[in-house]
Amino acid sequence: MLPVTDQDTHLPARIARIGADDWTEDTDTVAVEEPMEIRIVQEVDGVISRRPLAVTMRTPGDDFELAVGFLFGEGLIASREDFVDVSYCLDDDVQEEQYLNVVSVTLRPGLDLELSRVERNFYTTSSCGVCGKASLEALEMQACSPLTDRLIVDPAIIRMLPERLREAQSVFQKTGGLHGAGLFDVDGTLLDLCEDVGRHNALDKLIGKQVIAGHEHQPDRILLLSGRASFELLQKALMARIPIVAAVGAPSSLAVSLAANFNITLCGFVRADGFNVYSAVERLARETAR
Amino acid sequence: MLPVTDQDTHLPARIARIGADDWTEDTDTVAVEEPMEIRIVQEVDGVISRRPLAVTMRTPGDDFELAVGFLFGEGLIASREDFVDVSYCLDDDVQEEQYLNVVSVTLRPGLDLELSRVERNFYTTSSCGVCGKASLEALEMQACSPLTDRLIVDPAIIRMLPERLREAQSVFQKTGGLHGAGLFDVDGTLLDLCEDVGRHNALDKLIGKQVIAGHEHQPDRILLLSGRASFELLQKALMARIPIVAAVGAPSSLAVSLAANFNITLCGFVRADGFNVYSAVERLARETAR
Repeated sequence: MLPVTDQDTHLPARIARIGADDWTEDTDTVAVEEPMEIRIVQEVDGVISRRPLAVTMRTPGDDFELAVGFLFGEGLIASREDFVDVSYCLDDDVQEEQYLNVVSVTLRPGLDLELSRVERNFYTTSSCGVCGKASLEALEMQACSPLTDRLIVDPAIIRMLPERLREAQSVFQKTGGLHGAGLFDVDGTLLDLCEDVGRHNALDKLIGKQVIAGHEHQPDRILLLSGRASFELLQKALMARIPIVAAVGAPSSLAVSLAANFNITLCGFVRADGFNVYSAVERLARETAR
Repeated sequence: MLPVTDQDTHLPARIARIGADDWTEDTDTVAVEEPMEIRIVQEVDGVISRRPLAVTMRTPGDDFELAVGFLFGEGLIASREDFVDVSYCLDDDVQEEQYLNVVSVTLRPGLDLELSRVERNFYTTSSCGVCGKASLEALEMQACSPLTDRLIVDPAIIRMLPERLREAQSVFQKTGGLHGAGLFDVDGTLLDLCEDVGRHNALDKLIGKQVIAGHEHQPDRILLLSGRASFELLQKALMARIPIVAAVGAPSSLAVSLAANFNITLCGFVRADGFNVYSAVERLARETAR
């Protein structure tokens, strides 16, 4: 992999602060949002094939992790062994100013690439069905089975996670503008944290980091999301086999259905004084809560 | 248009409420998230052509408005005259349980459809460039010119918008799980409000409503977003020619750039006691703030 060149994650902005009785000129910082293209490179029959796969609006930083996490979440790669390199793209058509916005993932020769999986997510054909039930069935067809771990967590650990994430969100403190995704162990120790203007990206970065490190599954971890819990976020957690997903915000109906179908413990509205559990409540140690 | 059959926007869910010292079984409500497919129907050379265009995860409700607003935001239709019908899809391949999740928009015969515009947004080719600058230039190529209105608004009006939106967000009060987009006049009167699990959808619904009513442009309105302000949300506001965008959350760097380039007044972190202005501050009446 090439050495990573840092791009700014936040930039200064000239602003007017307008209060009830005052008006001041000031400088604020805003979170950077820039498009990033993910390209797939693969040798097929002795010929190098390159194809653009997706563009996402993201905050620069952890770009390689974002690309890998995206491919993993879509089921295109299953482990560290499925790709041989990740780098900023040096193709001739990439202009200099775009250099840090195009990431190439070189897949291992012979990897069978089901691009229809990505297309189904971006753009569902009628044959696969357009309803929540069909969305859940599509996951089952991807050979996603329910989680069978016997993890037990003290509810007091869940309650303290948002504060621990906030303390660590240094970029958040600067702009107030970033979603965060944190990975914790069952004792509530923060193991890793990623941020982005897009909530999907923050989670892709977090999971991509683990995949690059060779840990594609997280059977004894807790995921904390700084915002709401949607179907797609639960889908990514399922691919990484994370048994407990805690969200500061509300879950959607389809997120709850996915969590229930695949035995993920889904907690919502997590605060220091309590939270709601929508599925698989048996992972929470009941005696300690009393 | 067919009569709209209501789908639930929220559903009951069995939950456990776990506090510091108590554990209770309860029923909560969660916001519904279901996929919706948008199809385009058009007569070309005497033959009816039907093509699926996009699938979005959305909260049911204002489905026709969502479809129209999406097409309008992508620049595929420019006014009410560009489509002749919106309805739930009755194509043979749509199963009964999916009936309310597939919306067909019938375009007027002869409308020149630039589907590459949609593809560019979903999936940017390298020729059009992948960087913030290129994203802004792409809008200029769509013949989007800067706003030239001379609207002036009392800052005290901006400060009261979030409270007015919250009061009106009845669904929000039920689930805590929905993004809201509100359209206000310059006196701070709420004219319309749409909600969704997806922030893009909430804005598409709001703008789609106006387009269906024949008001494709909103040159004397204020848009309030319940969350953060991203590039894509500003892009939709620009297409509707809304001169003032106020967000309860933070703006991104590219949202600020778009607002500055196209002379949109972008307010962030809007609270009852104040807010920040990132661009086109001259639309705010300075004397009344002192």
